[in-house]
Amino acid sequence: MQRKLRFGMVGGGRGAFIGAVHRMAACLDGTAELVCGALSSSPAKARASAMDWFLPTERAYASYTEMFRRETRLPPSRRMDFVIIVTPNHVHAPAILAALEAGFPVACDKPLCLSLAEGKKIAAAIRRTRLPFLLTHNYSGYPMVRQARVMVRAGRLGRIRKILVEYPQGWLATRLETTGQKQAGWRTDPKRAGAAGCMGDIGTHAHHLAEYVSGRILQEVCADLTRFVRGRKLDDDGNVLLRFDQGVKGVLHASQISVDEENGLSLRIYGEKGGLEWRQEEPNTLIWKRLDSPRQILRAGRNYGHLDEHARSACRLPAGHPEGYLEAFANLYVAFNRDLEAWRTGRKLTGDYPGIHEGLRGMSFLEAVVRSSRAGGRWTKLPFG
Amino acid sequence: MQRKLRFGMVGGGRGAFIGAVHRMAACLDGTAELVCGALSSSPAKARASAMDWFLPTERAYASYTEMFRRETRLPPSRRMDFVIIVTPNHVHAPAILAALEAGFPVACDKPLCLSLAEGKKIAAAIRRTRLPFLLTHNYSGYPMVRQARVMVRAGRLGRIRKILVEYPQGWLATRLETTGQKQAGWRTDPKRAGAAGCMGDIGTHAHHLAEYVSGRILQEVCADLTRFVRGRKLDDDGNVLLRFDQGVKGVLHASQISVDEENGLSLRIYGEKGGLEWRQEEPNTLIWKRLDSPRQILRAGRNYGHLDEHARSACRLPAGHPEGYLEAFANLYVAFNRDLEAWRTGRKLTGDYPGIHEGLRGMSFLEAVVRSSRAGGRWTKLPFG
Amino acid sequence: MQRKLRFGMVGGGRGAFIGAVHRMAACLDGTAELVCGALSSSPAKARASAMDWFLPTERAYASYTEMFRRETRLPPSRRMDFVIIVTPNHVHAPAILAALEAGFPVACDKPLCLSLAEGKKIAAAIRRTRLPFLLTHNYSGYPMVRQARVMVRAGRLGRIRKILVEYPQGWLATRLETTGQKQAGWRTDPKRAGAAGCMGDIGTHAHHLAEYVSGRILQEVCADLTRFVRGRKLDDDGNVLLRFDQGVKGVLHASQISVDEENGLSLRIYGEKGGLEWRQEEPNTLIWKRLDSPRQILRAGRNYGHLDEHARSACRLPAGHPEGYLEAFANLYVAFNRDLEAWRTGRKLTGDYPGIHEGLRGMSFLEAVVRSSRAGGRWTKLPFG
Amino acid sequence: MQRKLRFGMVGGGRGAFIGAVHRMAACLDGTAELVCGALSSSPAKARASAMDWFLPTERAYASYTEMFRRETRLPPSRRMDFVIIVTPNHVHAPAILAALEAGFPVACDKPLCLSLAEGKKIAAAIRRTRLPFLLTHNYSGYPMVRQARVMVRAGRLGRIRKILVEYPQGWLATRLETTGQKQAGWRTDPKRAGAAGCMGDIGTHAHHLAEYVSGRILQEVCADLTRFVRGRKLDDDGNVLLRFDQGVKGVLHASQISVDEENGLSLRIYGEKGGLEWRQEEPNTLIWKRLDSPRQILRAGRNYGHLDEHARSACRLPAGHPEGYLEAFANLYVAFNRDLEAWRTGRKLTGDYPGIHEGLRGMSFLEAVVRSSRAGGRWTKLPFG
Repeated sequence: MQRKLRFGMVGGGRGAFIGAVHRMAACLDGTAELVCGALSSSPAKARASAMDWFLPTERAYASYTEMFRRETRLPPSRRMDFVIIVTPNHVHAPAILAALEAGFPVACDKPLCLSLAEGKKIAAAIRRTRLPFLLTHNYSGYPMVRQARVMVRAGRLGRIRKILVEYPQGWLATRLETTGQKQAGWRTDPKRAGAAGCMGDIGTHAHHLAEYVSGRILQEVCADLTRFVRGRKLDDDGNVLLRFDQGVKGVLHASQISVDEENGLSLRIYGEKGGLEWRQEEPNTLIWKRLDSPRQILRAGRNYGHLDEHARSACRLPAGHPEGYLEAFANLYVAFNRDLEAWRTGRKLTGDYPGIHEGLRGMSFLEAVVRSSRAGGRWTKLPFG
Repeated sequence: MQRKLRFGMVGGGRGAFIGAVHRMAACLDGTAELVCGALSSSPAKARASAMDWFLPTERAYASYTEMFRRETRLPPSRRMDFVIIVTPNHVHAPAILAALEAGFPVACDKPLCLSLAEGKKIAAAIRRTRLPFLLTHNYSGYPMVRQARVMVRAGRLGRIRKILVEYPQGWLATRLETTGQKQAGWRTDPKRAGAAGCMGDIGTHAHHLAEYVSGRILQEVCADLTRFVRGRKLDDDGNVLLRFDQGVKGVLHASQISVDEENGLSLRIYGEKGGLEWRQEEPNTLIWKRLDSPRQILRAGRNYGHLDEHARSACRLPAGHPEGYLEAFANLYVAFNRDLEAWRTGRKLTGDYPGIHEGLRGMSFLEAVVRSSRAGGRWTKLPFG
Repeated sequence: MQRKLRFGMVGGGRGAFIGAVHRMAACLDGTAELVCGALSSSPAKARASAMDWFLPTERAYASYTEMFRRETRLPPSRRMDFVIIVTPNHVHAPAILAALEAGFPVACDKPLCLSLAEGKKIAAAIRRTRLPFLLTHNYSGYPMVRQARVMVRAGRLGRIRKILVEYPQGWLATRLETTGQKQAGWRTDPKRAGAAGCMGDIGTHAHHLAEYVSGRILQEVCADLTRFVRGRKLDDDGNVLLRFDQGVKGVLHASQISVDEENGLSLRIYGEKGGLEWRQEEPNTLIWKRLDSPRQILRAGRNYGHLDEHARSACRLPAGHPEGYLEAFANLYVAFNRDLEAWRTGRKLTGDYPGIHEGLRGMSFLEAVVRSSRAGGRWTKLPFG
Repeated sequence: MQRKLRFGMVGGGRGAFIGAVHRMAACLDGTAELVCGALSSSPAKARASAMDWFLPTERAYASYTEMFRRETRLPPSRRMDFVIIVTPNHVHAPAILAALEAGFPVACDKPLCLSLAEGKKIAAAIRRTRLPFLLTHNYSGYPMVRQARVMVRAGRLGRIRKILVEYPQGWLATRLETTGQKQAGWRTDPKRAGAAGCMGDIGTHAHHLAEYVSGRILQEVCADLTRFVRGRKLDDDGNVLLRFDQGVKGVLHASQISVDEENGLSLRIYGEKGGLEWRQEEPNTLIWKRLDSPRQILRAGRNYGHLDEHARSACRLPAGHPEGYLEAFANLYVAFNRDLEAWRTGRKLTGDYPGIHEGLRGMSFLEAVVRSSRAGGRWTKLPFG
């Protein structure tokens, strides 16, 4: 790379959790810098947030529309290179479409948008504009998740049989959304979150992780979604039986009412010859279960000799120096930034990060589980293969 | 107690796993002794096994029929007090019925028998004879399982919402039954095991644990059972969505093909105010997840001050001195032996151990999951409430 | 074996912890039975305890002297075969000597006695009588401890460099001995416990474990013992630097004032090519750290294919069915009972369990640490090689 | 803050581990940026490294002398605000002194320098110039380490009795320094590392952690340092008995030859009422052991309600989103940057991060352990109180 990439941000103002995450992740490796933002729909908060991040006043925009319009007019040497979208879900589609229209590559938080139909419009715009697009299914940035994927692909587990993926959280065990808590507010509101609550917010991460590591395609679900907290309009818990291609079976469950669970995403996958287990809260360990040998503990670390290259290169530190959520998140930006550089210089994109395909898979998953559950728990095919 | 109780054993000869377990468990606390046996359907093995256990030749019987007949004729001061049945499943019902008929209380390994219909005959015989009956759902003998049950009952978790129970094993990941391995042989044979394989062998344990701890009654299941190993006639894996009474939801999955998993029974249960987590492979720890306080680690130990009496009295050793599978198993016999003593002396039975009710619940669970799975994964009610 | 072995017990009456442990351990495998006892120095308690264990009144003796005298006079077909001594330390030597004198093999709890000098007298009596002698350093009965020993001996760790052994407990963090608690009473009393408190009670276990697994001989110590609880006469905590033969270095620390620690014995041993880690509170796992391969998790289990025979044969159950403290303890009796049978039938003893040598090593360790600490923490050689 | 702080870096060129760490840590929160560097003593490598980090050619200096001289001449609006020193140990003192002399605040990697005498010169210069100085004992940046410190200070453990601190690594189990590995090269070279190897590199971290959390002052040590790998000139392993003020006892051991250990720094501290345990490899958990209540698991998380403010404010993410080594490291820079801002604007410094005092304590610790060990393991007082 010859220079740092410049990005703008839509959403992510003061008090937002995920905006700061994207900023830290995108900048961690010193290859990108924030140059402008439409950081909040509230002008006062947008300004204050821009000051927190040392943005020049003239690049603290009041809306993404304004940002795209005015950035477009800047000389290429100053103009932002790409945009990061970290708003509630309902803004994703319009903001993405506007950004692409204005010629800006996009990194967007998950889930892709509100519906598969909306997702297909975005897909069309991406195809048309050929702009790089990143959807931050960030858990696939963890080195040991990548290691798992490589091992499955290499056949070290044999033919896959069973996948168990779960995502328990407890933060919505009470009716937090009525207390003014911002995150809870929009995530429990169908207008801003979409047709699924818990499943949209974290079930899609679990689904993506299962497909990413296993390489198998989920085909059919049988879902039992529940709203445990009185007055809530969207599911805060869900249990789903899974059928993948090639006869692989599985279970996915996710919850926001599992008291005192923090961010318990975990994956277990079993094949004819072995199994793998990974837990997000202890992300630097991957347990390898083997048919004819003792269990092995694989560890993250850039100097750790027993990892495949795709995993080791995702580590910044030697083994035993814990890397976490931000570093994994940053790994998506490492790959995306590489593609941005390729795009800027007219080279071929690698697409080695979650993008529009994964976004459509997620929307497809959501539509199937919602439909299955509404039908009382009937096996339902995913609409998008 | 004034004297040791005397018991005979049906099955459990050399090479059997569970026979030795029952003998050690029943004798651990010095309150019972093995006095006779019909230890194998092979006369040579029956004799050899009897010698291993120092049984006098004349009480090494060739069949349970002979054993019951001849023991009945012994004077009360020498006659066995009760019988332990540890044969493959298909022998349970006839042996139990014969024992009850002959007037002997019975301890029998799980599952109860081959079908709910058969189970109801046993239930009728027990009602008629009023003899004590123990079904060894041994995991409920663990102190921390009892602690969990007490805590749920006392309302310390609030209203229960969700139950996750799982039982992964890996020992049947290959076609072990064709190698002459005895355990694998009968467990994969519908004639000896019944209509379910994995679900019968371990799924019933998981089901029992969930009901035992939660106090909730499973009402409906949606099951996806699979035979992963080619040529196998019974399920070696199953995923089940659960609906209990009072709106409690859950997931049960069990497997015998999850490579390198040993005996991974675990339970997580969540209520409005808290959750509990217990893992059989580290049985002396119970994790208490709380809505408004840090997570607590409760530990087994007869001197451990933070357990309820029902749990602490199930410990023989101070905290930090691990007790395991045998000690938990023995705890069922502690309670059963107490009832045998009550029965011998004409006092009221407590029934404070799994018995015929739990056996019928198990058969009901099995019939429902088999039926649900055969129907392609349709929600199916349990036939026995 | 042709018949069960019969044993008597000295000490271990009601309220004693370790008496019941020895009885359960000796009887677990059905090869021995308790037939008599001098269970308490209080006659009333002795009688009551004998009733708890269904001993005939005439074999509930008032003292070990009486027991040895009267058992000697019984016909061989009824007489006890060996004696178990589970009294406070100060009774060990006289009781052992009297038992040997009367011709009875002895199993005795650790530590051997009150001093090295006393221990040498016991050693002389054992040499003279040639009777089997077991000292229950029970932690060497754990399968994974045996596995560790086998691996070190086989050179799988390369030349050993470093040994870390620790034994934190917390039960004496307050002045429990003034509350009437029996265990605390004698263990903090120099007359009954000997010259060391914490070091005698648990430090000797740690020392034994280190030598047992490593095969190295501790030669020199530098000790800093402390009495943290006011008014206590014996150490309740100690830190010790270790120098073994062959240049091996190490650390041993033990404590009874480490609040909320239960029975935290653990061992880590490192050689040129690998390391091993074992923790008593999770005894069925052994971690194998390797120079050129990922860490392996070895597991106890009689069906677990990756253990050496000496370890696997110490398991009664399949992997994943936790065995604990009692089962490990029983493993010492399995070996000792085998030797008793050999002794009864005039065959050669194996001595494959801790005995007088280990007892003298322990006393030697205690004398060295006490002397070192009293000298302000000076390097001090162990008197007995 | 009104603008980002600008820093230069001495050392840390391509292939260096710790240089990148400092850069990421200092920049993580968007409050500082790298503007110049003397990144390597090799001019070619210095240039290449500067390009990697997008430094303008004119600010890629050939030496720190040049850097300080030329930066001093830049207008204040462009000049660097502070300098980070990440060279081998022997360069620390001259580079620090030169920076201070030139008026630049300094952040320097640990240990402070080569000797206590050298350290005192640095101390004098700091006193004289009154410039902010950070010594990156980075482990004190972990939220749960801070929580531990707060809890000890608040008396929640009662009077402290015992401290166990350890730091096992395995990376120098073989003679890595002869393979050209850069890190191993200088760390095993007395000229560049100082009088201690393992103790200097990681023992000082352990020592600092113990004092930081406990608030106790180490007064005396008894050390046994070893060079296990043939041909090595400095200790690669060491065991140390500790005596702190107020009668607190402890053990510190550190190792670079403990095969397959990664970065196993851990601390256990016990008081009259409770204990705490923290392990660097799972840094987001703090175990609280309590005299009269079950053990509690405290967790890092900016939304985690059971942390004290000083700990919670050190978290960037909600509980369950692992933060690691870099985030902890960055926390030192957060506090240091705050002081730089105070210094720039003429306000009072807080000094709320490790500085010269901690550096002198570390050198004092090193001199004492080296002297003690050379004297055969004699108790030795720390020269600097």
